[in-house]
This record gives sequence, C-alpha cells and structure tokens, in this order.
Amino acid sequence: MLFILKSNSDPSQLVEKIVARSASYRVVDLYGRRIVVAWPDKLVEDIVDDSVEVRVKSSRPYQLASSEWKRDKTIVDVDGVEIGGRSVVVAAGPCAIEDEELAIEIAKAVKRAGAKMFRGGAYKPRTSPYSFQGLGEKGLEILKRVYEETGLPIVTEVMDTRDVEKVARYAHMLQIGARNSQNFHLLKEVGKSRKPALLKRGMAMTVEEWLLAAEYMLLEGNGNVVLCERGIRSFEKSTRFTLDIASAVYTKTVTHLPIAVDPSHPAGRRDLVEPLALAAVAAGADMLIIEVHLSPEKALSDNEQQLTIDMFEKLMTRLKAVAEAVGRSI
Amino acid sequence: MLFILKSNSDPSQLVEKIVARSASYRVVDLYGRRIVVAWPDKLVEDIVDDSVEVRVKSSRPYQLASSEWKRDKTIVDVDGVEIGGRSVVVAAGPCAIEDEELAIEIAKAVKRAGAKMFRGGAYKPRTSPYSFQGLGEKGLEILKRVYEETGLPIVTEVMDTRDVEKVARYAHMLQIGARNSQNFHLLKEVGKSRKPALLKRGMAMTVEEWLLAAEYMLLEGNGNVVLCERGIRSFEKSTRFTLDIASAVYTKTVTHLPIAVDPSHPAGRRDLVEPLALAAVAAGADMLIIEVHLSPEKALSDNEQQLTIDMFEKLMTRLKAVAEAVGRSI
Amino acid sequence: MLFILKSNSDPSQLVEKIVARSASYRVVDLYGRRIVVAWPDKLVEDIVDDSVEVRVKSSRPYQLASSEWKRDKTIVDVDGVEIGGRSVVVAAGPCAIEDEELAIEIAKAVKRAGAKMFRGGAYKPRTSPYSFQGLGEKGLEILKRVYEETGLPIVTEVMDTRDVEKVARYAHMLQIGARNSQNFHLLKEVGKSRKPALLKRGMAMTVEEWLLAAEYMLLEGNGNVVLCERGIRSFEKSTRFTLDIASAVYTKTVTHLPIAVDPSHPAGRRDLVEPLALAAVAAGADMLIIEVHLSPEKALSDNEQQLTIDMFEKLMTRLKAVAEAVGRSI
Amino acid sequence: MLFILKSNSDPSQLVEKIVARSASYRVVDLYGRRIVVAWPDKLVEDIVDDSVEVRVKSSRPYQLASSEWKRDKTIVDVDGVEIGGRSVVVAAGPCAIEDEELAIEIAKAVKRAGAKMFRGGAYKPRTSPYSFQGLGEKGLEILKRVYEETGLPIVTEVMDTRDVEKVARYAHMLQIGARNSQNFHLLKEVGKSRKPALLKRGMAMTVEEWLLAAEYMLLEGNGNVVLCERGIRSFEKSTRFTLDIASAVYTKTVTHLPIAVDPSHPAGRRDLVEPLALAAVAAGADMLIIEVHLSPEKALSDNEQQLTIDMFEKLMTRLKAVAEAVGRSI
Repeated sequence: MLFILKSNSDPSQLVEKIVARSASYRVVDLYGRRIVVAWPDKLVEDIVDDSVEVRVKSSRPYQLASSEWKRDKTIVDVDGVEIGGRSVVVAAGPCAIEDEELAIEIAKAVKRAGAKMFRGGAYKPRTSPYSFQGLGEKGLEILKRVYEETGLPIVTEVMDTRDVEKVARYAHMLQIGARNSQNFHLLKEVGKSRKPALLKRGMAMTVEEWLLAAEYMLLEGNGNVVLCERGIRSFEKSTRFTLDIASAVYTKTVTHLPIAVDPSHPAGRRDLVEPLALAAVAAGADMLIIEVHLSPEKALSDNEQQLTIDMFEKLMTRLKAVAEAVGRSI
Repeated sequence: MLFILKSNSDPSQLVEKIVARSASYRVVDLYGRRIVVAWPDKLVEDIVDDSVEVRVKSSRPYQLASSEWKRDKTIVDVDGVEIGGRSVVVAAGPCAIEDEELAIEIAKAVKRAGAKMFRGGAYKPRTSPYSFQGLGEKGLEILKRVYEETGLPIVTEVMDTRDVEKVARYAHMLQIGARNSQNFHLLKEVGKSRKPALLKRGMAMTVEEWLLAAEYMLLEGNGNVVLCERGIRSFEKSTRFTLDIASAVYTKTVTHLPIAVDPSHPAGRRDLVEPLALAAVAAGADMLIIEVHLSPEKALSDNEQQLTIDMFEKLMTRLKAVAEAVGRSI
Repeated sequence: MLFILKSNSDPSQLVEKIVARSASYRVVDLYGRRIVVAWPDKLVEDIVDDSVEVRVKSSRPYQLASSEWKRDKTIVDVDGVEIGGRSVVVAAGPCAIEDEELAIEIAKAVKRAGAKMFRGGAYKPRTSPYSFQGLGEKGLEILKRVYEETGLPIVTEVMDTRDVEKVARYAHMLQIGARNSQNFHLLKEVGKSRKPALLKRGMAMTVEEWLLAAEYMLLEGNGNVVLCERGIRSFEKSTRFTLDIASAVYTKTVTHLPIAVDPSHPAGRRDLVEPLALAAVAAGADMLIIEVHLSPEKALSDNEQQLTIDMFEKLMTRLKAVAEAVGRSI
Repeated sequence: MLFILKSNSDPSQLVEKIVARSASYRVVDLYGRRIVVAWPDKLVEDIVDDSVEVRVKSSRPYQLASSEWKRDKTIVDVDGVEIGGRSVVVAAGPCAIEDEELAIEIAKAVKRAGAKMFRGGAYKPRTSPYSFQGLGEKGLEILKRVYEETGLPIVTEVMDTRDVEKVARYAHMLQIGARNSQNFHLLKEVGKSRKPALLKRGMAMTVEEWLLAAEYMLLEGNGNVVLCERGIRSFEKSTRFTLDIASAVYTKTVTHLPIAVDPSHPAGRRDLVEPLALAAVAAGADMLIIEVHLSPEKALSDNEQQLTIDMFEKLMTRLKAVAEAVGRSI
C-alpha cells in the first residue's frame, strides 16, 4: 500500500499506526513526493491518517514502479540528458574500455553522429575467467577523461557491492548487467547511491521480476531507473539472444519508468544491429545503447557485434527518420 | 547440389550421371530456371555436364530457399499484389470468418484504409475441441464473395492434405499455420498446388527448420513462398508469444524469400499490435498480416487481439510514415 | 459439462434439452460408460434429466482427459499388452524401418531382452526434404512381418489423415509425432479409428495443450490414448531436447491416461539414454519407447541416439531393478 | 593449457617462459597437484619445461572443471560428509531459517530420517523487496546452534561479496544461488575462501556457462565445488521450473565435479518433490537438497513446496530403494 503524503506533513503518526499492526514500512522521497510504503496490504488497508493525501493499493506486486500511482512518464536526468522525454537518447561506445586515446576518439565520433551519452565497460562480466576482464579502476579514469574531453555523460557497469561508491564517483549512470539483474544486494546499494541506473533485463527474467528488481532501487529512494531490454534466452540460436520487443512494449503500459533497448547483444552480428535499432525506436523505446568501435575486429570483447563509426553514422541518419515518423526526435 | 541448366537444354544426360552414382535428384522449374537438385553432395560434386550453366553447392541445408544461388529478392505475386517489392503489403481481416455480411463490411473498411489483401479463417486450428472450429467450406464461399465485392485477394489457412485442392479453388494464397509448419505432407501438397503460400513459423521452430519447411514446397516447384514470423514460445508470459524480430531480420540475410510479420498473435492484446507492427516495418518486413474486426469483443476467437476499424485506420497512417522513413511505401 | 448416463438409459431427452439451449454436445462411449459432453457449461449447468447418473463440471478445459470424473488410472490394451498397470511396458526398435531381415532381427533381440512392443517408423517426419523419408507402405508390410515372427504388437507413426486407415490395418498402436501433435484433423481421424494412440508432446506444447490434443481423440470415442513426453525445446543445446520429467509427473496428477517417456530423443546420444530411462521409471512412467538398432552407426536416421542390442540388454536389467524399487515390474 | 607439475618441482622457469610470450597464467594447487594454467593456448602450446609432468590442452573452455585432465570423480568433503562417492548425500531443511527451536527440531527430524547435511537460508534472495528477506547474521547463529545440537554440517547461501568471510565462519558449505550464478566477483570470493561450494545453475544458464562459473572458483584454488541443477526456465508453467535432468546427466560426462539436484524448486508443489527426487537418484545424482519444514503451510517462504517431516521420511525410504537399485546407498 502506498500512502502518498500531503506536502510538509509529518508521517510519524501514520508510521505508529502501521507499526501497531505489525506491518512493515519504508518512508521514501520520490519524484517530489514523500511516500510511506507499507505491507502487507491486508494489515494496513483500513488505516486513516491526516497526513495522507491519497492512498494507492496496487494490483501489481511492484508498487512504486507501477503506473497505477504515477501516470505521467518519468524523465530520468543524466547530467542534463533527459531519458523518457520526446527525444530518444542514444548512448554509444565500445563494449569494453581498452585504451584512453581510442576511447576518446570513439566518443568524439559518436558525439558527432548524434549520440548523447557514452557507454563503455571498465568492469566486464565475462562468462569465462580466461576472457579479458576489463581495466577496472584504470578504465574508470579513462571514462572520466572521455567526459572531460567530450561532455558526454558516462554510463558504465558496476558488478560488485564493494565498487558502487567508486564507480558512482566516475560515472553519471550505473549499469546493472543482465547477470546481476537479481543481485539484490547490488540493487540496494545502487538504490542508496541515488545515481541514475540502467537496469538490464536478465536473460530469463519475466517482466514482473524486472520491475520488482527496479522496485528494490525505488524503495531505497532512487527513482532514476531506466529499464533496458537486451534480449532473452530462447531456443533460437541464429541470433545471439532473442530481442523481446513485445515485452518492452508491454512494460511501457505498466510502468512510468523509461525503457531502453540494447540492439547490439541480441544481434550478436553488426549487420543485424541497424534493423533492430530501428524497430526499437518504432516500437517506442526511450533510449538505445549501442556498441561502437573504431576497429571492431580488433576489440577485446564482442568484436562481432560492435558497429564501425561509418555504420553508426548511417544508422543515426535512419534512426532520425524513424523517430520523426513516430513523433519523436533523436 | 543445384545444377542450374542452360535455357532449353535437356537434363536427361545429367540425370543419368546422377542416377549412375546412386544419388537422389529432382528436376524443378523455379523463377524461370530449370534446376536439377541432386543429393547428397559428395556423390555428385564432380559431375560435369554440358546442360549445366552453373552449379551451386550450398553451405546451408536449405538449398533452394538459400540466397546463395539466387541473390535477388523473390517477389511473390498474389493476384496482382506483389509481396517482396518496395511496397509493404498489409493483409487484414478477422481471425475467423463468421458471417458474410460482416466479412464484406470488414473487407471494405480495411481496403479503404489501405489493406491490399484480405485474411480470414474458414478452417481454424483450435487448441480445444470445444472452441469454434470455423465454418469450413461455407467460410470459403464467403471469402469468394469478399473477393468479388472488393477485389482483395484472399489468404486463408489450409489444415488438411485432403482440403488443399478445395481451398486452392477459393483462395489466392494458402496459409500454413504455426501448428502445421512441420506437417510435411501438407507442405508437399501445397507445394504441388503451386499456389502462393504463407508459411507461418512454428512456435518452437528454428530459422533453419523454417527454411527447410519452405524447401519442401520449393522442391515441388512452388517458389511462391512467403515466410511469416508470428511469435515463438519463450518463458515470458506477459505477451501471448515472443515476437522474434531478430530472427526475421536474420532470415532476410540468408534467403531470397519475402518475410511477413503477424503482430496480432504475439501481442495477444489489441493495444500492443500497433507498436509491434511499426517495429516490423522498421525492421524490414515485406508484409504484415493483421487481425481486424468490426466488433472484436463479439468475435468467436482471438477477441482480445483483433483491432477495431478505427484502430486499424490509425495504424495504417503511422505505418505509412514509418515505411517511408525506411524507404518503403504501403 | 459431462453428463454420465445410467446404464441402458436413453439420452434423447437430455440431448433435446441441450439443443433447446443452443449448446453444443457429443454423445461418446468411453470406458464402458455413455457420456453426453455438452458445452459451454453456462448454458447447460442447470439441466436435470432422468437419464443422468452423475454430472461433472470440470475445472479444467480438458474434460474427458481429466481425472476429475475418472479417478482410476486408465489401462490401454494394445493387443494384450497393458499400458498403465503395475508393469512398465517397454517398446523398442529402430528409428526407421529400413529392411525386413534387419527389423526382424532387432525385434527378436529386444523381445529376448524384455521389450513387450516393437517400434519403428515407416512414415518418417524429417526436418529436411533431403533426408530419408521412410519406406512408406513397404515399411508397414515389414512391420506386419515383424509381428508375425515375434508377436510383438507394433507402434508406428501416422503423419497424414489420408493414411490413417491404412496404417491402422498394419499397426496395433498409432503414434502421433511431436510435429503433428496439434494437427487437429489427424487427431480426429485417429480418434475415429478407435486404435490405441501414442500422442507425443509437441516441442513447445504446454501440458494443457497436450491434454486438449488428447481430448480431440477422446471426444471421438477413443479412450485408448497414451501420452508420451519426448523432450521440449529450451535454450539448452548440450542435449538434443530437454526431457521435461516434471511435466510428466505433473500430468499424472491431472489425468487418468497413462504416461510414456521417450528417453532417446532428448538424449540425442546413446550414452545418455540409460540414465534418462531409469529416471523416467523412477518418476512413475507407465511406458518407455526406446530406439534400438543392430548397427546404429549405419542407421539412416537418428544414428547417434539408437542403442546397440548390448546396451539395451544392460539397460533392461537396470530398469527392472529400478522398477522394483518403486513397486513396479517390467 | 594446463601444465601439471611434477611433485616438488619449481614452476618459476615455466612461468618465465609463459610471461616471455605475453600469455596469462595462474599457479593453482588442486587435488594434491600443482598446476600452472596458461592462456591463450596458441601462445604457450610449444613450451617445454622440466617441471612439467604432463600438459593437457582442453578441447573445452572450462579447463580445470573438465574431466579431460582428471578422469576420477572428485569427492568433496564437507566436515566429514563425502559428496561424489558411492553414497548419495541428502541435505534437508527449511527454505529459510525462521526460529532457533524450529530449526533444531527440523534438523533432528531430518537427521533421524537419514539426512547427512542441514540446509537453511539466513540470507534469502527474494524476487520482491516486500518478501521476507531472511534473518541474516542471526540466522547464521541459529545454523551454528543446529550444528552443535545435531552434528549435521551446514550448507547456506551467501549473496554478497562482503558477506563471504562471515558466512564461511558459520557454514560448512557455501551455496551460490541461481540468481548469483554469474556474479563473478562472488564466485571469486567463494573461490578464495576454499570452502566447499554448492553452485546452483542459473535459470537460463547453459551447461558450458555453469562449468565456466565453477572454473572461476577452481582457478582460485578451490576444487571443492558441487554443481546443483535446480530447474531452468522454459515455456512450461505447470511446474515452477523445468528440471533439466538430461543436462545433469550430460554434465557428469564432461566434468569430474559431483552433481547435486534440488527437486524442490522445479516441483514448486510438495506432491511432485518425491518423483523428481527418485528420478534424480536413478539418473545418477550425487547429492539431493530438499526443503523440509515442520509446518510448511506456516513457512515464510516457499511454503507450497516444502515437505512435511512425514513426507520426508517416506521419501527417504523410497530413495534408499532406488539408490540400491542403481548400485548406490543413501
């Protein structure tokens, strides 16, 4: 149950009533409102209190992430770049940060082509311990240099609760990868950081589980969550993953949070990235996150699916046309 | 191995050589060429014959459906409507044919909105024997009346080898449904009919299996095959099926056959049909097949996902904009 | 709604009442009872008639296949072999019938080892048109000879509605393959034949859909249906299919029909067949269907997964031990 | 490449040669052998050194977990309980630790019935932040008391890199849950702890990915890893998860590590647990991990699937019979 408080009202009496019924609660400040979340519903649903402007009993297990209490779409501000508004935000950059000069060169090129954010991994979750594991903190420093040189806000992955504070010092948006999408301690730490978060959907994660993972962050008072569809596991192996565009579309109908799409990972091959990116924007994605490299064939990871600069420029031109066709811009 | 013959050449000597090596073969006429298909490769790969213009050893198990021997995209002509060209073809109509007057009214409405073909089921594959099973031959007669009234070519499903000839007398394009996508006897009969065919992808069918199912028809000399992605089964249940847009895109890179997308079945809900239809066109679909009804809530099947006429008209306007944005028309 | 009639009572008045309410109905004789099935429930649930002994409103969409009206397990009699009783029935034989002498030799060997039925394909559903398609009617004649020589009842696949009558003349049990598991016309024809049927589960078929496919046969008056789990499609490719032992176990709790398991297809490799067969019997399977060949490496299909006679003999010894451990015999 | 060293030999020259070729390496002590792991293979495959007894180039990406270099099955010793030997080890206990008295009572009961280890969650990964999250450190203290009272070694989940040291002080075996199965930092920390580890398979994890996750721990020198199959995500929803018994069986053929099966989570319902447990032992599982509660209907989590003591006792009797039938004991 969400008790949305009147401005400047004191929740202490309400909290007392909740505690008196042995219910659990959390007081969170989100989107300019103070909200007392209390559960389970059945213990608190008859509580009346002067501090409450409106109470919302959600029909869905994710209460704060649900559009039932917040009908307007949330806009997540990442260092001035607005995700969730009329404009579709493109974040681009290499899979992994490998070298400072290279990173800056890619960043400048994607910025010229219209990207509004830079992506690149310093900590890399790799299936095999024998694969390149990322540069770690050195990679974060390179990302900082990219920001200084180009002004593009940085989104990068954090994999370990112990690293959240550090990564948050360098990046403007924290990515939680598909493999950590139900690492609940990590979700809580990123929630506490209040940093904008990009929550990738797990490979076998239902939409409901995805929104409950977001709920972990919202419940810590972090409303700056963008949900990113990146392909699920299915029986089909002709592409790397199965881009679940229908779930992305469905998700938009049940949450106020913006939806991003990563067309690079499901494609698994650079020639399939463009049609998937176009499809995502046509279907209503608020953000795209695309892997781009100067010389993809030399990249230390995901070298099959990273676009060349040339391909990215052409893609941006086509993306703009499709965005306009559906009443958006890029 | 494909032996593509010179014009007006006689394959009899080539066939003799194939038989002499105990290999199998079939002589087919496709797309204006006479082709001798022989297998297995290893028995026939050193055969030389004067009748042969070019021989193609496919790296893929589907030889005739592969783009390796035919680089230009195939255009399937359905009573004058071209599928696979610059223009994206929209086929629309009710899930099932229920009534003549109703069918004609829907057909006129979708035609006005820009549909180029009419869809509607006379034979309905229903999960439960207690569900409406379609009107059968009476439904076919109604479809004939729709064509007479509107001039829209008809695509309708055939479920039984015993019905192929009959359905082919009424319809312009034979649909093979997802549940019959590996009903190999049915594929052969539809192949023999030479009628344009719409081959829906099975719910658990890999792209390779899909193209091999098409190969069954091509090997009977029927090159008029359109492949239709309609959603696969995955773990996710927030939508009815998982529209596998990435496989549709991948499939276009390995075959010359046109690709259709059915956004209605994966959506399962009419409000999700539009974004999926837009995504399909942005991704490069050559055809859309969409369920539309005058009063969907009264329909005898799939009533959740059929669009109203009003929704269909709005969809067509947006589809045209997206089609133009990617260099196509509707 | 199931109206189970008193012995020797006349259903005509009941049927009149059903028709008067515009409901649908079917009179079927199953397991020694006459049953009037009427639907939809809401139109007929207040009907009272003297002919009715008991009426059962099923909570599940499959009414006749449900254990709600028939609590005792059904025993399917195939030429004297009882499937569904205390004894676990093993059907064994080659994937495809290739040669008479070979077939008879395999049959004799599997009989010696304890198999009670012979399996072998005359009509083969093959993913590729370039694969061996089976001997067809010639294969059926070989199967007849196998029966004459060994007395083992025959189970073999029927793929086409046009072949049901013919196959039924030669075989004792008709197999409906995974790819035809929702070929509803075929299900109806096999239902009408009244022959014992082995209904393989489709690769992406839910348990509910599987039981509704069985319902198509029961509604034609054929109660001799055995359900066969043979592996579903999942993301995992280290085995050919994913044997869904949990669904087989669940299915036993909702239906009175016997459950078979095919360990050969999910294994895809002969060394994995034994542990899966043992698991199936431990979990409660009523029947196993296992591919066995004299020289698997020379087989024209599925040569990776067919057991040698030697492996089959060892398997039978271990199967007997496990069957006894769970209170069954072989 | 694995360089397995002679006893008491000095790896320093070998390491120099590896470094000279710009390859990566790690020196690990596993199963009484000192091994230098070096990669990529192509840089090191011609290295010859006196310290090396044998070198193994694995055909699989998981080198240390592969049975190619270690043919004998690994036995993991958990406080005297041997997992991977002739005897099948049953670990039983409640889903979550809720109360000391209750935990001890359950432990005594499962011990009486033949369980050799106690399971119970102090840290609980819950899909929803509104669900019971476990007692945390207080739960660990209860587990310690259970051990003191019963002598049953404890297996419990660790979810956060920051908690590994603490949980390792209380537990005898660290469980890595399905949702953290690719939390690579956690895998490394558990690897460094050298504590026996139970690695649950992720819901969409391939066998190869599972073994590579184990490899992360082996590469830290922790060879005490047991792999636990607990059901994957498939399209089928009649059971909670799809127990992938075939993959468990396959995995045994490619690794020397023991295989555990958790029948409780795929079942999702207590009446399905027994047949799945029997199937697992028949198929060759080395360990079972089963949820048991005194009053499952009152449990704070997973209350549908926990067995009663009575059910567990009956299960153990049947398990013993099946284990004996396949040449094992319990």
